[in-house]
Amino acid sequence: MTKTEHLPKLAAGSMRIIPLGGLGEVGRNMATFEIDGKILIVDCGVLFPEETQPGVDLILPDFDSIRARLDDVVGIVLTHGHEDHIGAVPYILRLKPDIPLIGSTLTLALVEAKLKEHRIKPYTLTVAEGQVEELGPFSLEFVAVNHSIPDALAVHITTDAGTVLHTGDFKMDQLPLDGRLTDLRAFARLGEEGIDLFMADSTNAEVPGFTPTERNIGPVIEDVISRTKGKVVVASFSSHVHRVQQVIDAAAANGRRVALMGRSMVRNMGIASELGYLNVPQGVLIDHKKALKLPDNEIVFMSTGSQGEPMAVLSRIASKTHAIEVGEDDTVILASSLIPGNENSVFRVINALIKLGANVVHKANANVHVSGHAAAGELLYCYNILQPRQVMPVHGEIRHLVANAEIAKKSGIADADVLVVENGAVIDMKDGVARQVAQLDIGFIYVDGSTVGTITDADLKDRRILAEEGFISIFTVVEAATGNILVGPEIHARGFAPDEAVFDDIIPGIQKALKEAVEAGNSNSYQLSQVVRRTIGRWVNTKHRRHPMIIPVVIEA
Amino acid sequence: MTKTEHLPKLAAGSMRIIPLGGLGEVGRNMATFEIDGKILIVDCGVLFPEETQPGVDLILPDFDSIRARLDDVVGIVLTHGHEDHIGAVPYILRLKPDIPLIGSTLTLALVEAKLKEHRIKPYTLTVAEGQVEELGPFSLEFVAVNHSIPDALAVHITTDAGTVLHTGDFKMDQLPLDGRLTDLRAFARLGEEGIDLFMADSTNAEVPGFTPTERNIGPVIEDVISRTKGKVVVASFSSHVHRVQQVIDAAAANGRRVALMGRSMVRNMGIASELGYLNVPQGVLIDHKKALKLPDNEIVFMSTGSQGEPMAVLSRIASKTHAIEVGEDDTVILASSLIPGNENSVFRVINALIKLGANVVHKANANVHVSGHAAAGELLYCYNILQPRQVMPVHGEIRHLVANAEIAKKSGIADADVLVVENGAVIDMKDGVARQVAQLDIGFIYVDGSTVGTITDADLKDRRILAEEGFISIFTVVEAATGNILVGPEIHARGFAPDEAVFDDIIPGIQKALKEAVEAGNSNSYQLSQVVRRTIGRWVNTKHRRHPMIIPVVIEA
Repeated sequence: MTKTEHLPKLAAGSMRIIPLGGLGEVGRNMATFEIDGKILIVDCGVLFPEETQPGVDLILPDFDSIRARLDDVVGIVLTHGHEDHIGAVPYILRLKPDIPLIGSTLTLALVEAKLKEHRIKPYTLTVAEGQVEELGPFSLEFVAVNHSIPDALAVHITTDAGTVLHTGDFKMDQLPLDGRLTDLRAFARLGEEGIDLFMADSTNAEVPGFTPTERNIGPVIEDVISRTKGKVVVASFSSHVHRVQQVIDAAAANGRRVALMGRSMVRNMGIASELGYLNVPQGVLIDHKKALKLPDNEIVFMSTGSQGEPMAVLSRIASKTHAIEVGEDDTVILASSLIPGNENSVFRVINALIKLGANVVHKANANVHVSGHAAAGELLYCYNILQPRQVMPVHGEIRHLVANAEIAKKSGIADADVLVVENGAVIDMKDGVARQVAQLDIGFIYVDGSTVGTITDADLKDRRILAEEGFISIFTVVEAATGNILVGPEIHARGFAPDEAVFDDIIPGIQKALKEAVEAGNSNSYQLSQVVRRTIGRWVNTKHRRHPMIIPVVIEA
Repeated sequence: MTKTEHLPKLAAGSMRIIPLGGLGEVGRNMATFEIDGKILIVDCGVLFPEETQPGVDLILPDFDSIRARLDDVVGIVLTHGHEDHIGAVPYILRLKPDIPLIGSTLTLALVEAKLKEHRIKPYTLTVAEGQVEELGPFSLEFVAVNHSIPDALAVHITTDAGTVLHTGDFKMDQLPLDGRLTDLRAFARLGEEGIDLFMADSTNAEVPGFTPTERNIGPVIEDVISRTKGKVVVASFSSHVHRVQQVIDAAAANGRRVALMGRSMVRNMGIASELGYLNVPQGVLIDHKKALKLPDNEIVFMSTGSQGEPMAVLSRIASKTHAIEVGEDDTVILASSLIPGNENSVFRVINALIKLGANVVHKANANVHVSGHAAAGELLYCYNILQPRQVMPVHGEIRHLVANAEIAKKSGIADADVLVVENGAVIDMKDGVARQVAQLDIGFIYVDGSTVGTITDADLKDRRILAEEGFISIFTVVEAATGNILVGPEIHARGFAPDEAVFDDIIPGIQKALKEAVEAGNSNSYQLSQVVRRTIGRWVNTKHRRHPMIIPVVIEA
C-alpha cells in the first residue's frame, strides 16, 4: 500500500512529479504533477496480467496517493487512445466523475465509448497539436507525435517550478500514412526555450537503429492477398487504424470486400471512419454475415486475436468454433507484434491454422508489422534536438528504462541529470531542478470479476498453490470429551492426483491423532483442525510428494 | 488413451514405424520400429510442461501401444544426451529394467547418471560413429552428427522392409569445436545405396540460411569478460559442453578461475571432463565456496538457470537469495537460447539483475548463442546429398514439420513421399515404400509428484479453474425430515476475492433452499448438495461475476 504519511512537505513554488504506473512494467501508464495544491494527471492506463496473476482481468495504477486529493485534480491529459494509457479512466471517474479529460478528437472519442459501457458521461476538453491551455497552475502545450494509433499528442507542461516535456508513446515515422509527423520543429523550439525535464518513451530503447515506416507493410499485405486463391483473414490490434487502412486498401486493390470482425474492431473502426481517420472506399466494407456468402477470393476478414486471446475471433477460427472456416488455399496474416509472454498462445493458434492447411503469414516470416515506438536512433534525434536539462525515462521494464538512460547519457546529459526511477518515485522540481525526495510503495490494484482492489497478492499466491497442487478439504464433527469422530471425516480433493479412495489410508491416522489431541487437552476446534491439517499434510508430503492446500474443518459436539 | 485394438495386422516382411512423441511438440522424442515381431525404440525423452499444465513436473511419451510388448523390444537407441531424448528412459526401464540401451560414450554416461538417481543399473551397448550392430531383424549403422552436445549420433536402420535414416537432433557446423563434423561422406554413401525413409530434425526448418558456428561465441564471451571490472556470471544449459568449454577458455585467457554452479552443471561437466569431452586447463576450476573468497576480477561463475527457472542459481542470484552477489561492475551473460514461453521468467530475471546494477549480456544484445539445430539451408544440403525416396519430418511443432516438408519438396521429393504426420501415426513400410495406415490417439503421461500417469487432463482443467477462480467449500449437517440445518453451514473459500464474511449474505438463501428441497421430496444428501451448489453458484455468478469451483457436502442426520 502507498505510504503517503512519510512524504516530505512540498515547498511553495515547487512541483512534485510521481509516476504511479508504467515504470518497471509495460502498461498502466500514469503520472501525477502537483504544484500550488493542484494536481495534473497524464494518462491513466491498465496493465494486462501475466500468467503469475491467474484470474485477474486488469491491473490498475495505484491511485492511493491521490485518492483523498481528487478535488485538487485539475484534469487528466490523455496522450493517445491505447488501453495502457486510457483503460483505467473509468475506475478513477467512478471515484469522481467530473474530473475533466483533455485529449485529441480520436483519443476522447475512444475513451468516451469506453466510459459509455461504464455509464459515465465525462467532462471533456478536445485539444489539437499547437494548442495551449491553462489548467490552474499548469500551462499545457500539445505537440503532434506519430504512433501506432492516429492523433497522438505529447504534452509540454510549463509551471513556476520549471518545464516538462512528456512524449506519451511515440515514434518518428518520416513517411506517416496520414502525413502527421512527430513535430520536430516544435521540439526544436521548445528545446531552444529550454526543457527542464524530458519524460521519454523507453519501450524500444533497446532496439538499435530506426523503426521502419508503416508504409512498408501495405505492399507486403497486398502481395500476399494477390497470391491467395481463397479467403484471407488478417488479425491485428483493434485500434491500429493505419494498419487496418492498409488492409482495406490492399483488399480493394485486389477486388476484395472487407468484413470487420470482433466487437472492439467494429467499434473502433466505426469511430475512426466517422471522424475521418479511416478512409473506406465506397462499398468495400461488408457485414460479416453477408461476407460468408461471397466467393472466397472476394473477401478479406479483418479480425482481432493477434495475441492468441482464446475468446477472440482468430482463436475461434483456429479451433473451428467460428463461422469462418479456413483451409487449403486460404491465408491468415497476423499483422501485429508478438507481445512477450504470449508466445505459447500465439504459436498454438498458428499451429492450429497450419494444421487446417492455411498459409500463415506473420512477423517472423514476412514484414507485416512495424513497432509503434521510437528505436534508439530516433531517441538520439530527440535528445539532440531537445537538449533537455534532465531526463526521466518512462514506459518500460527496467531494462528499457536503463537502455533509454544510456542513450540520454551518450547524447551528453550528465549522469546525475538522468533519473532512472520506478513507480512511486517522488520527484520534486524547483527552479527547473528535479531530484527524487522519496519513494512510495506502489501496489497492484487488481480488477477481478466485479471487484476492484479486493483481490490481494495473498489471494494470487493461494491461486498459484491451488493451480500447482490442488487442495484437500476435510470436514468432521468430533465428540469434545473423547475425540471420537461423530460425523465424517468427509474428505474431498481437486487437482490432486490420486482419486479420493486413497484417503482411506489416512482416516485411521486422523482418528488416532484426534483422540491423542483430546487426551493431551488440546480439544478446541481450532487445535483439532490443526491436528488434522498436520496429519494429512505429513501423509501427503511423504507418501505422495505433494503439497496441496489443506482446508480442515473440525466441529465439536 | 491409445487405441491399439484398431491397428491393422502387420504383414510379414513389413516394418511398422510409430512416432510416440516429438511430432507436434518440442520434446519427448520417441519412435518405435517393428518388424518380424521385434521392436526397436529410437530415443525416449521428456517434454516440459506449459503454463496450461500447472504443477506437472514432466510429460512422458505415451508408452501404451508398447506397454504389453516390452518383451519384444530389442533395444533403445539414444541419439544424444539431452533430456528431450533420454529423460523418459527411467520410466520405461521401471517397467522392464533389462531393455538394452544403445548410444555413444557420453550419451550413455549421462543416462546412467540419471538412472542411478532412480536406482536402476541398465544394460548398455556403447557404440561409435561408423559402427554397425545387428539387433534382431534390425541392422544399425551409426553416423556422427554435430549438435549442441558432443557425441551425438544419427542412426541408419536396415531391415527387409527397407532402410531408414534418423538424424536425431543435428546441425552442420563446418568448424565444430571438437572437429567432429556431421558425416556428410557417410550421408553420401548411404544416399548412393538408397535411403527409403529420411526422418529429419525439423526444429529450425523455419529459420532461413545456416546456423553460425559455435566458434563465433568464444571471442564474444572473452571480450565481455576482458571488459568486466568485477565478477562474471555465465548462465547456460548444463549439458552444453562446448559452450562451457569456451567459457572456461575465455576465463583462463583473462586469468580468471571458473566455479561451476548448480547440481546438473557440476554433475554433467564432471562426467564430460572425466571422459575427455571437456578440457580443463590445470587449476582453472575452483570450488564455489573458495571462489567467493577470490577478488571479483579473478572469477567466473558458470551457472544454470538461463531459462529463468525460479529455483536455479541465476534466479536466486537475481532475487538476492544466493551467496553470489552481483552489482555495479559485474557482468551476467546468458549464453543460451530463450525457449518460447519462458520470456516472462527470463526477462523477470534480467530486469532484476539490471536493477542490481549488473551489466546483462544476452542473445538479444550480443552474439552469445547459436542454435543446435540445422537451419533451412543445412537441411537442403542433406536432402540433396541423401536424395531419400521418402521423408518424415520429426522433432517440432506442426509449423516446423510443415516448413521442413516444404524444403524436402523444393529439393525434388514428390508430395506423396513427404509424410507430415503427428504423434501416433502408424506408418507401414514394405519394399521400401512407407504409407500411413492408421492413427493412434496419443495422450500426455504426466509425472506429478510421485505419480506417473495418474493426473489427467481433467485434473489440469480443475487446476486451471482453481487458479482462475478459486473455490468455495461448504459443509452442513441437515435434518432429513425438515431440511433444518443442524451443523454449519461451514463455508470456506480460497483464491476467491471477498473475505468469508460475505457468505453471511447467502446463508439464509441456503437454509430456504434446503427446506424447500426437502418439502419437494428431494431429501437425499446428493440432491441436497446439488441444491446448495446451485444456490451458491447463482449467487456468486450474479453478485460477484465469478465462477469459483463449489464443493458442497451435505450430510443428513
